[in-house]
Amino acid sequence: MSATSAPVAIIMGSRSDWPTLKGAAESLDALGVAYEAKVISAHRTPDRMYAFAKGAKAAGFKVIIAGAGGAAHLPGMTASLTELPVLGVPVQSKALSGLDSLLSIVQMPAGIAVGTMAIGEAGAKNAGLMAAQILALSDPALAQRLADHRARHSQAVSETVED
Amino acid sequence: MSATSAPVAIIMGSRSDWPTLKGAAESLDALGVAYEAKVISAHRTPDRMYAFAKGAKAAGFKVIIAGAGGAAHLPGMTASLTELPVLGVPVQSKALSGLDSLLSIVQMPAGIAVGTMAIGEAGAKNAGLMAAQILALSDPALAQRLADHRARHSQAVSETVED
Amino acid sequence: MSATSAPVAIIMGSRSDWPTLKGAAESLDALGVAYEAKVISAHRTPDRMYAFAKGAKAAGFKVIIAGAGGAAHLPGMTASLTELPVLGVPVQSKALSGLDSLLSIVQMPAGIAVGTMAIGEAGAKNAGLMAAQILALSDPALAQRLADHRARHSQAVSETVED
Amino acid sequence: MSATSAPVAIIMGSRSDWPTLKGAAESLDALGVAYEAKVISAHRTPDRMYAFAKGAKAAGFKVIIAGAGGAAHLPGMTASLTELPVLGVPVQSKALSGLDSLLSIVQMPAGIAVGTMAIGEAGAKNAGLMAAQILALSDPALAQRLADHRARHSQAVSETVED
Amino acid sequence: MSATSAPVAIIMGSRSDWPTLKGAAESLDALGVAYEAKVISAHRTPDRMYAFAKGAKAAGFKVIIAGAGGAAHLPGMTASLTELPVLGVPVQSKALSGLDSLLSIVQMPAGIAVGTMAIGEAGAKNAGLMAAQILALSDPALAQRLADHRARHSQAVSETVED
Amino acid sequence: MSATSAPVAIIMGSRSDWPTLKGAAESLDALGVAYEAKVISAHRTPDRMYAFAKGAKAAGFKVIIAGAGGAAHLPGMTASLTELPVLGVPVQSKALSGLDSLLSIVQMPAGIAVGTMAIGEAGAKNAGLMAAQILALSDPALAQRLADHRARHSQAVSETVED
Amino acid sequence: MSATSAPVAIIMGSRSDWPTLKGAAESLDALGVAYEAKVISAHRTPDRMYAFAKGAKAAGFKVIIAGAGGAAHLPGMTASLTELPVLGVPVQSKALSGLDSLLSIVQMPAGIAVGTMAIGEAGAKNAGLMAAQILALSDPALAQRLADHRARHSQAVSETVED
Amino acid sequence: MSATSAPVAIIMGSRSDWPTLKGAAESLDALGVAYEAKVISAHRTPDRMYAFAKGAKAAGFKVIIAGAGGAAHLPGMTASLTELPVLGVPVQSKALSGLDSLLSIVQMPAGIAVGTMAIGEAGAKNAGLMAAQILALSDPALAQRLADHRARHSQAVSETVED
Repeated sequence: MSATSAPVAIIMGSRSDWPTLKGAAESLDALGVAYEAKVISAHRTPDRMYAFAKGAKAAGFKVIIAGAGGAAHLPGMTASLTELPVLGVPVQSKALSGLDSLLSIVQMPAGIAVGTMAIGEAGAKNAGLMAAQILALSDPALAQRLADHRARHSQAVSETVED
Repeated sequence: MSATSAPVAIIMGSRSDWPTLKGAAESLDALGVAYEAKVISAHRTPDRMYAFAKGAKAAGFKVIIAGAGGAAHLPGMTASLTELPVLGVPVQSKALSGLDSLLSIVQMPAGIAVGTMAIGEAGAKNAGLMAAQILALSDPALAQRLADHRARHSQAVSETVED
Repeated sequence: MSATSAPVAIIMGSRSDWPTLKGAAESLDALGVAYEAKVISAHRTPDRMYAFAKGAKAAGFKVIIAGAGGAAHLPGMTASLTELPVLGVPVQSKALSGLDSLLSIVQMPAGIAVGTMAIGEAGAKNAGLMAAQILALSDPALAQRLADHRARHSQAVSETVED
Repeated sequence: MSATSAPVAIIMGSRSDWPTLKGAAESLDALGVAYEAKVISAHRTPDRMYAFAKGAKAAGFKVIIAGAGGAAHLPGMTASLTELPVLGVPVQSKALSGLDSLLSIVQMPAGIAVGTMAIGEAGAKNAGLMAAQILALSDPALAQRLADHRARHSQAVSETVED
Repeated sequence: MSATSAPVAIIMGSRSDWPTLKGAAESLDALGVAYEAKVISAHRTPDRMYAFAKGAKAAGFKVIIAGAGGAAHLPGMTASLTELPVLGVPVQSKALSGLDSLLSIVQMPAGIAVGTMAIGEAGAKNAGLMAAQILALSDPALAQRLADHRARHSQAVSETVED
Repeated sequence: MSATSAPVAIIMGSRSDWPTLKGAAESLDALGVAYEAKVISAHRTPDRMYAFAKGAKAAGFKVIIAGAGGAAHLPGMTASLTELPVLGVPVQSKALSGLDSLLSIVQMPAGIAVGTMAIGEAGAKNAGLMAAQILALSDPALAQRLADHRARHSQAVSETVED
Repeated sequence: MSATSAPVAIIMGSRSDWPTLKGAAESLDALGVAYEAKVISAHRTPDRMYAFAKGAKAAGFKVIIAGAGGAAHLPGMTASLTELPVLGVPVQSKALSGLDSLLSIVQMPAGIAVGTMAIGEAGAKNAGLMAAQILALSDPALAQRLADHRARHSQAVSETVED
Repeated sequence: MSATSAPVAIIMGSRSDWPTLKGAAESLDALGVAYEAKVISAHRTPDRMYAFAKGAKAAGFKVIIAGAGGAAHLPGMTASLTELPVLGVPVQSKALSGLDSLLSIVQMPAGIAVGTMAIGEAGAKNAGLMAAQILALSDPALAQRLADHRARHSQAVSETVED
């Protein structure tokens, strides 16, 4: 894996997860944080997953956002293969609406942590925000952009129910 | 991994899963099928899992029984790393009683299959039986032992509700 | 029941289950494994089910794939009437999205095993794959086709999220 | 199957279900309705189930109470093999507390009906009561006993919360 | 309440439940069993419910089919006010897909029984069938029509998955 | 029903619900609000429920707290028979831990409202508090006692995790 | 916060909740009860929520209706910041259909009560009705309008299932 | 709030949550990361929560671990009041085993993120680990301790199922 200048990796189990996961990309774009997005399937491309996760720290990534649906093993397996913080996004599944995705991601045993977000696009957006919050701990300029972003969003909430 | 003369591997995420998984061993013992049982954690020992699953076929295994609880990734990840049939046993978890284990094992995406059993010891016993049913397709003596075993169990069901 | 040259039977509770179960047929077609597909309802045609399941081994079948929805009794009852391995496919139901189908199929008591797949078409596809994995244990040519099939599918997973 | 003078059959999948199902027997005893209780496992003794259900009407039974747990197929399969009314009692299961039993019994497809009761002993007691309500439609003496029984139980409900 | 010559009453909590409950009417029509269908809301017309249920037996009804959705109290309350057998049909609800309806109907305490059917139209159809099965216990002509009906439906299940 | 000087009625489906519902009594005792507690079963004593609910306003009650478990119809039926505000307490049930009680109480159709509390004793305590909050709208002395009570409870929350 | 002459506040976490919450407004309009409706997000505008809830009583409100979806914290947090009675409306969420909203609102710990309504618009309508029931305890004219409203709605329930 | 030299705050809704949350403290102790642990109830001490969360960054904290049960609002509300990353721990609740806690914490709307862990003590331990993983991004010595800790835990997983 070649070196990256992006601090955040967004990985997902299938290209069909991108309409959900691009929410993470949008949050990072809004905050001026670089990322790389890749399809890495725990089940169909386990070798790619091992190589990526084992090399992610050396490649220069700081935070990994991983999304998957159904029996969603990508976030937890990635977390078991790297010491970087991993944020998990449960993709809404067809039959069980993402309850399977959520439980497969969040119910990790003691020893390997995944910071799990809400099911679907809201969760992906928040994964991007949380990655930025983590990076902002050692990046005052990003911290300022985050504070401004939140203030703008708070002020944008009109009290009026109808126009 | 050294060669095995046992056709069945029983693997589990934690030694604490053995009281459940030994049900599989009991079924195999009763039918005269050899097995090896090992603790292999998808999350705490991902390299061990990778090495085991990639080498299982060459080592001589025919069927793998994998049990785990919570965000149970061992059965599905093993199945993604071998072409041998994998049977999954959801271990009953503390908070959610194994519903998380079940969904994490059974809801595999198209492409990688896990033959999932019931939650807990009944599921483990049945994993042992099904491994034997699979092996019996090319082992007539085992097929006969299976038929006898089932007949004995059927006859043992007394119609009387109380002694 | 007349003899079959197909090693796999695909049975389902209703013709309306075929859009789901044909996923199993597609997997078997892709791997060059012959199958017969029949509608056999545990509830509406119990005599047909008894006759089929009792005669399946003698007819020459090796693996049975059984799909049903709601209070889905076909896989478990078939498994109780034959020593062949039975793979169960929960069909997505209208009100409960297949959670009822899944629990009715997977939660078998100790003694009779059903290897349960995911709810819906993904589960059906995987049932076809697993039937092939089982048959490949004694069919090296099929084993090679399976390995090739999996390699092709792995390579087909592009890392790129968008074209 | 020999002829019976009991109008109600109580069948259950395992002798371990009797502590639940005896609730049905108690209700019938209290109302002076005869019954026969038998262990008949859909999975372990499918031939016994077939013979019993097919012969139940000719043997003289009028109503069948069937209880089972987990992937509970006994009530629905019995109903598919007889035209007698079948009442189902979901036995509380270990991992999923009877939710699996309930869905396996109640979610029958159109064409075969099971009158399903609550999970556990309360459901068994009510199955006995409902069998009596059905028989009372053509048995005025039983109808009177039922009315008296209900009146006694209503009057026994003290309004006081503590002694 | 005036006397009825119909042995079956079909009651429902809202006119919007009729598309579901008419399944019961169709089954009864097919079997030549007369019925009356009425909207009776436990919550909006409790007095009507009390009057109907208390008078149903004297009016000549033999079996009551009651359907409702959400916090579905109509079947259980009707059963508490009459000694006639009551069959409950959970109507599929908007948010929780009828799981609320099912639990509100089936989880009756010991003392008052409701024979609960599947969620939705399949359940309604089966309620009609079961009402007929109950009435057939003392009506040999109806018993014959039921047997014929079931045989026709069994024969109508073609084994072929596609035309 | 004779006139009451207590503004709050606490009713429950069974004396076995009192260990839960006495939480409501304790809250009311702590706030100096009088209450009457009675066992009134929707299913076993429907006439008592009807008489109580129809007469509650005339008797002088202002708020009704109703608790029940399983298919819990008491709160909703009481609300349909009175214009007084009704607060519902789902009692924890044996098999389904009160999820059935909760859905049976809270999922009321438009037209009849029940203010539902948490499952179990915490819910009962809060029902007592909310009854007091309602009464305090026109009772300044009670409003003061409520404010003092809340302040005391807030101050009693020590920040220290261990002694 | 300026003084209000409206006794009821309807607050919601997002303008997208208004199609649900306007059900409350419709009930209050029908009963001639004034209200103010505002968007107040617990998460995006916590300062606005604190200010509103702390000042609600002094501003003249008597009852607060709060609706939110997903991890719905607005009703419970509002209740913790005011002594006014708070009614919670779970808004139907995308992935989990409002089950998350319901549990986030209803499962309050002992000490802070939220009177929770059904998921969605029916719940909102009932929140409006219950607010009126509470206000009617000290407003005889409103009590009369409520009684008339309920009588009209009861009479509007035709017994006929079809026109 | 006075300044802290501890980078991690562990807050919880009740002292009764400490047996769960001390798992986080144990992980941090093992990795040599300082923390402060406090009881802060969203519902009973909302002002304390507000003051703590608003001041946490200025006080010197870097990561907040927040645990609560039932309608668990502490993690999400804290996250809405600070830009520091917040990790949520769902405490196992009595009736619903923590499913309510989990959904109340994880299903946050877009805009405010909580990195949610598994229900119970395993989740608390992982919250401690993840806090350390976040801090290690700018603390190489801690990164080394984390790597050593993980290696030790991996090596401690014996492959043997029994001694």
